[in-house]
Amino acid sequence: TATSKFVTDAKIFAPYSIYKGKAALSAGPLMPTFNKLESGGFRIERRGAIMLTFWPAIGERKYDWDKRQKFALSTTEIGSLISLGSKDSCEFFHDPSMQSSNAGQVRKSLSIKAHADGSGYFISLNVVNNIQKTNDRFVVPVTTAEFAVLRTAFTFALPHILGWDQYANQLPQNVN
Amino acid sequence: TATSKFVTDAKIFAPYSIYKGKAALSAGPLMPTFNKLESGGFRIERRGAIMLTFWPAIGERKYDWDKRQKFALSTTEIGSLISLGSKDSCEFFHDPSMQSSNAGQVRKSLSIKAHADGSGYFISLNVVNNIQKTNDRFVVPVTTAEFAVLRTAFTFALPHILGWDQYANQLPQNVN
Amino acid sequence: TATSKFVTDAKIFAPYSIYKGKAALSAGPLMPTFNKLESGGFRIERRGAIMLTFWPAIGERKYDWDKRQKFALSTTEIGSLISLGSKDSCEFFHDPSMQSSNAGQVRKSLSIKAHADGSGYFISLNVVNNIQKTNDRFVVPVTTAEFAVLRTAFTFALPHILGWDQYANQLPQNVN
Amino acid sequence: TATSKFVTDAKIFAPYSIYKGKAALSAGPLMPTFNKLESGGFRIERRGAIMLTFWPAIGERKYDWDKRQKFALSTTEIGSLISLGSKDSCEFFHDPSMQSSNAGQVRKSLSIKAHADGSGYFISLNVVNNIQKTNDRFVVPVTTAEFAVLRTAFTFALPHILGWDQYANQLPQNVN
Repeated sequence: TATSKFVTDAKIFAPYSIYKGKAALSAGPLMPTFNKLESGGFRIERRGAIMLTFWPAIGERKYDWDKRQKFALSTTEIGSLISLGSKDSCEFFHDPSMQSSNAGQVRKSLSIKAHADGSGYFISLNVVNNIQKTNDRFVVPVTTAEFAVLRTAFTFALPHILGWDQYANQLPQNVN
Repeated sequence: TATSKFVTDAKIFAPYSIYKGKAALSAGPLMPTFNKLESGGFRIERRGAIMLTFWPAIGERKYDWDKRQKFALSTTEIGSLISLGSKDSCEFFHDPSMQSSNAGQVRKSLSIKAHADGSGYFISLNVVNNIQKTNDRFVVPVTTAEFAVLRTAFTFALPHILGWDQYANQLPQNVN
Repeated sequence: TATSKFVTDAKIFAPYSIYKGKAALSAGPLMPTFNKLESGGFRIERRGAIMLTFWPAIGERKYDWDKRQKFALSTTEIGSLISLGSKDSCEFFHDPSMQSSNAGQVRKSLSIKAHADGSGYFISLNVVNNIQKTNDRFVVPVTTAEFAVLRTAFTFALPHILGWDQYANQLPQNVN
Repeated sequence: TATSKFVTDAKIFAPYSIYKGKAALSAGPLMPTFNKLESGGFRIERRGAIMLTFWPAIGERKYDWDKRQKFALSTTEIGSLISLGSKDSCEFFHDPSMQSSNAGQVRKSLSIKAHADGSGYFISLNVVNNIQKTNDRFVVPVTTAEFAVLRTAFTFALPHILGWDQYANQLPQNVN
């Protein structure tokens, strides 16, 4: 009656998605990567993130996935989001080409703005691409209940994104 | 590079149950299902839920399980419940036959109403069945302590219901 | 470099202990037990608990373990404790011989009383034993920081005590 | 009846690091150690901790790891930190040579002081070494978002540091 569960490299697709009138928003975690050390240990190489994806509505309950734009929340940005009060707002700026010759050509800004009555937030992504001469803007109104799902899921994911769950994979018989 | 963990495929029955004067209420999680992709990955097929079951008292400490009614809380409804303030209330409506020819014939509504003094909630389920000409109503008063158990258990279960715990089943040696 | 971790029946001893002037207090979880069903599933048989143990000081940094008294917090009592505000108090009563011929002969009461200034709590256990004609009383002052450890550890343990972590031991490939 | 899960014995390096103008701060968990008992059980031998490491800036985005100083937060100090209000402060004192002949020669103090406007904290480590005649002081301003990462990661780590996650490594078929 016992079967085996393989901890593999198989990719998992289980985003939490919110579909609203003008756009949809989905969120899912990206796990960190580790390097194996000569000592046999493992050192984190790249921290994980929460990947947010926005894509526009093009009709009733129809959305255009090809027009999606992404924004990867860093650990500190996740910390900002999960500690947001019901009247608070925050905004993050990313340049996907930072430290390359295209620096400054694409600017992404994510804003989370509380409704005046504390009943939820507007989550908006703005992407200005000076190379392609495009300016995409997505606005997804998120209810308090939906934000509670995001906060709970992000709080769960954060230690995994930092790689701290790996510390716990230890034997009880460390000593003797 | 694949590491195995044995788990049982077997069904688990571990509901949290609250027995009160007129009815009993139990809550337990339903896990999501996944599809295996040709790429070897896994895509969530159906999200999980928290299944609430109500059944009536028919005497002192006697309850009639055959008269039970169910209500499956979605992820967003779970988010609403776990973020409920001590003076807040909420209500959800389900039509189990939605998008079938019987749409509208059975209406279920779950209401969570804070006591005026903040000492707990009334959790009520109303099921109107126009086909069977029945109208079932269950009311279970829940103390602050019992609600804290529900909130803590639901907060624990939510990432599993979303399937996000699967992201964490990864080896530390992702990168060479 | 990979070694195996056995999930065994081996008992774990890792209580969180607080030593104060007149008594010491330790807390540790008791896991639930399950019955195997003919269907191959598992049904919870006995819920877990948090076992509190008090034992008296008999000198400077000396405590008498032989004079210990225990109090097993139920899931709902844990819910009460983890939702306690910084000015709140609560009290629980147990009769270890309930529903036996000795009912009422031993009465245990646990009280958690906030300091007036919100800087912590007094956790007290009183055990009146009419058979042995004894009356034991233990009082352990607990700081806000120590109570935060208890609250965090109890919140972590609660889903395990309910048996809900077992729901999560499932394969990602439920479907196909 | 024993089910195996493979885990690596290997050391994990995944600190959460904050780089600021005058110093950097990193935090990572130390897991507890257990002794195997003759009965086959396991008793915790040494509780875990959160190791904080501070090291000074020596130029723009340049830090001197050789000048690092460490401070190991105990479980109760972690409890203090994760329950800190946005206007609160706390301070801890350690003597790494306590109960040795060098007692009192090295004094370490860690202070966490809220910004007056509630926008974050100063985390400072002061190490006075009377043997080496040195006095090192590190100050790292931490934003609310960064502190939320620390709080979330520490809350996740605390039950592991106590060894309570080991209680959960049990089979569902405890009984029968």
